[in-house]
Amino acid sequence: MKIDINSDLGEGFGAYTIADDEALMQCISSANVACGYHAGDPMIMDRTIRLAKEHGVDLGAHVSFPDLMGFGRRKIDMAPPELEAHILYQLGGLDGLARRAGHRITHMNPHGALGNLASSDPKIAMAVASASLAFDPEIAFLVLPGSALEEAASKLGGRAIRLFLADRGYLSNGQLAPRGQAGAVIHDLDLVAERVIDVLTKSTVTTVSGEVIPMPVQSILVHSDTAGAVNLASRLRREITTMGGAVVPLSQQT
Amino acid sequence: MKIDINSDLGEGFGAYTIADDEALMQCISSANVACGYHAGDPMIMDRTIRLAKEHGVDLGAHVSFPDLMGFGRRKIDMAPPELEAHILYQLGGLDGLARRAGHRITHMNPHGALGNLASSDPKIAMAVASASLAFDPEIAFLVLPGSALEEAASKLGGRAIRLFLADRGYLSNGQLAPRGQAGAVIHDLDLVAERVIDVLTKSTVTTVSGEVIPMPVQSILVHSDTAGAVNLASRLRREITTMGGAVVPLSQQT
Amino acid sequence: MKIDINSDLGEGFGAYTIADDEALMQCISSANVACGYHAGDPMIMDRTIRLAKEHGVDLGAHVSFPDLMGFGRRKIDMAPPELEAHILYQLGGLDGLARRAGHRITHMNPHGALGNLASSDPKIAMAVASASLAFDPEIAFLVLPGSALEEAASKLGGRAIRLFLADRGYLSNGQLAPRGQAGAVIHDLDLVAERVIDVLTKSTVTTVSGEVIPMPVQSILVHSDTAGAVNLASRLRREITTMGGAVVPLSQQT
Amino acid sequence: MKIDINSDLGEGFGAYTIADDEALMQCISSANVACGYHAGDPMIMDRTIRLAKEHGVDLGAHVSFPDLMGFGRRKIDMAPPELEAHILYQLGGLDGLARRAGHRITHMNPHGALGNLASSDPKIAMAVASASLAFDPEIAFLVLPGSALEEAASKLGGRAIRLFLADRGYLSNGQLAPRGQAGAVIHDLDLVAERVIDVLTKSTVTTVSGEVIPMPVQSILVHSDTAGAVNLASRLRREITTMGGAVVPLSQQT
Repeated sequence: MKIDINSDLGEGFGAYTIADDEALMQCISSANVACGYHAGDPMIMDRTIRLAKEHGVDLGAHVSFPDLMGFGRRKIDMAPPELEAHILYQLGGLDGLARRAGHRITHMNPHGALGNLASSDPKIAMAVASASLAFDPEIAFLVLPGSALEEAASKLGGRAIRLFLADRGYLSNGQLAPRGQAGAVIHDLDLVAERVIDVLTKSTVTTVSGEVIPMPVQSILVHSDTAGAVNLASRLRREITTMGGAVVPLSQQT
Repeated sequence: MKIDINSDLGEGFGAYTIADDEALMQCISSANVACGYHAGDPMIMDRTIRLAKEHGVDLGAHVSFPDLMGFGRRKIDMAPPELEAHILYQLGGLDGLARRAGHRITHMNPHGALGNLASSDPKIAMAVASASLAFDPEIAFLVLPGSALEEAASKLGGRAIRLFLADRGYLSNGQLAPRGQAGAVIHDLDLVAERVIDVLTKSTVTTVSGEVIPMPVQSILVHSDTAGAVNLASRLRREITTMGGAVVPLSQQT
Repeated sequence: MKIDINSDLGEGFGAYTIADDEALMQCISSANVACGYHAGDPMIMDRTIRLAKEHGVDLGAHVSFPDLMGFGRRKIDMAPPELEAHILYQLGGLDGLARRAGHRITHMNPHGALGNLASSDPKIAMAVASASLAFDPEIAFLVLPGSALEEAASKLGGRAIRLFLADRGYLSNGQLAPRGQAGAVIHDLDLVAERVIDVLTKSTVTTVSGEVIPMPVQSILVHSDTAGAVNLASRLRREITTMGGAVVPLSQQT
Repeated sequence: MKIDINSDLGEGFGAYTIADDEALMQCISSANVACGYHAGDPMIMDRTIRLAKEHGVDLGAHVSFPDLMGFGRRKIDMAPPELEAHILYQLGGLDGLARRAGHRITHMNPHGALGNLASSDPKIAMAVASASLAFDPEIAFLVLPGSALEEAASKLGGRAIRLFLADRGYLSNGQLAPRGQAGAVIHDLDLVAERVIDVLTKSTVTTVSGEVIPMPVQSILVHSDTAGAVNLASRLRREITTMGGAVVPLSQQT
């Protein structure tokens, strides 16, 4: 009964902050750190890496399209070779700072518009996976179950780690219920905690239509920039521990 | 009689080009590649790294202040910790692309306004040297003889490699004659070649006032973005070879 | 027999240049000046505006997606309200510099990926047209005949000026032959000049399939960044004058 | 007994916010709006302009060095002609959006490192003043009493409006007490309000050493990004009104 709690951190820029990274770092076990493309700058990346190291939190690269103004949420038309070069640059930039801090990138996942594309477009997924594996053949990919990125990582012999979105409703086919649909977003903290317990103890989730389906995942995503993120993360950590489970970084799971 | 010929390459950006990198790559033995701060983008960095690899040319990181519009020529007030983070990000970004290409960063030197500061300001020099050595303790520094960067590198146990500027006049104290002074810039290609021969065979240079002073250097810098850069580089290579010398990358010198 | 010769200028950035703006400025009668988004910076914009003023050349705003690295050639997903704000910012930025130089923006056209979208997507065309007319109700739009931007401008009561691409083949429906198709790009300077004469004297063009179709246009576009741009522009100017025609800026046509 | 309350607004960027612009807009009478260089993007500029228009708040341009990552707080070496071009671009960009919203720039002041330089360096002050007056000869300058910018504006026939920093201590010579010195920053809201009343009713301020000196100012600056900014601004507005004074935008003062 080991599971990872994961969050996107280091998403400030210059004088701007967007989440309470210090508080979240105490609840989670792996962090996806912005690499300067949708958010983050070298000073913030450095601070976030050091915080992660200090708290025994796994370091992941949260790569993006180059789009600070759009927070990486706008799709930019890029051919795969260009995208690959941008991913290697971001992985390397984060690694440059991690080396000095004595930490190490062990996973990655794409952010925003790039994340959406990597889930649905096999060519983009392949570009993300192959660039990342060229950087480090041991790197793990945080993926949505059934996504194009999961498939691309597995085709190339990479390790894919499945994410559970604790506050999102699921369809019978295991996909996320589209936003706007009833039950797509779950605001009740008790209900969210209950679902995490199901995932942890039974590897199942109850869908928006009431069906129980398998949900074998190794990591639970907590969005850092929503109100109550710290509450949610610390509540989940407590529930998991109370159940006799353990919150364990991805790299220490077997 | 081994010497390195060195040039700043990969200084285009997006649709822009500024030098004939392909032609220069055939004449030189080490390249300082722009890291996206004063010039260069991941696609250009990738192409330049591959070209270097293909021609057996050493790969160096040409780091800068973040100033694309000013081509890194404008001083930006930055405290040492911030500068260090930016240097690590650039070194890492270049390394991310180099890994895939099977090449490796073996030296670095700072560009433009940062280069000037690193030559004259001990605090900036120390920031450049310590960040670079934290990235890789084996990294070599291309320096002007007597510069603050040479001293900082040596204090921290780093390897400093002295550069000769073949087309610039020198003062009796071994420093460059300031631009504007008579003889500060040498346009006569024959004279430049002659000086390189002196440096190669006798480790001396004749100053602007006619004195002969020691000039023990391991590398000759050819500016890539001046008219005649390719001519100069190929002429120097020919002269060196004709004299029985060898143009050899820094990492292969002993 | 009056016609305008038009070119995209001011497309350098910082230390980078991409076209011979000074030479072209002597041949053309209207310039579309980059506004800092795909190219151009305030210093280059200022120089280009002053050159245009000096040569009696009309000043147009060549607006783009914010994409310096992609030279504005990559589509960026932007909702119309965001696009409108970016267009107003660019028009204003160019106008700020034009005021000091005593020049004035009298036309606009969108660049690259934004230009393609504005030709084909009515929503994007409407955003471009309405933002520009909110800036200045007198502004003219340089358009391809039959494009969505022409229609949007006309719907909103704006003035649309039709462009002829002298070195591109046309289909029977008046649209450009897609690149790749035989005859899509015309490299023979004599043939290009001949076509301009047809347009000038008969308002017709011969299509790729040999048909003669009407081509009522007021402006001829010369690409600034292709080899031979200056030759082409000066040749066209000479041919037009020899035929008794006049090269006249858009704002001076009636 | 009319005085202006002034604040720097629109200092978010993309997904980032830094102040409660909506609440502040209800207390102040003039706003200095970031122009995309240290903060602000076209969407945020547009929203801020519309808010100002709606609340009858004067629109000013808060220009800066191009330094989003440093929030405009880092000095960038720029020659006056380059700085002038950047100022015209920012003024124009803001004006482009203001036109559509039916608002109008009536004042300007430089931000951060540029503000400091414009206060102390006559060449930089002259560049700021002359570019702004070339944009609009009627533009007013918000200045610190005795600053280089006040002098430059007055030399060029521009209107300078003196700012009072309500929460900062003053020296006997009318200059700000340097941060770090005892009394340099005043945290007691009652004391701040008292000082504003003195300025309003007697045009004097009590210095850090207890002296009463003249302080003839037309505007009170409230920093938007400090905790309690809204409290301070609404308190000042109330105090001024209670005293029989009026909070009046600069353009409506005579």
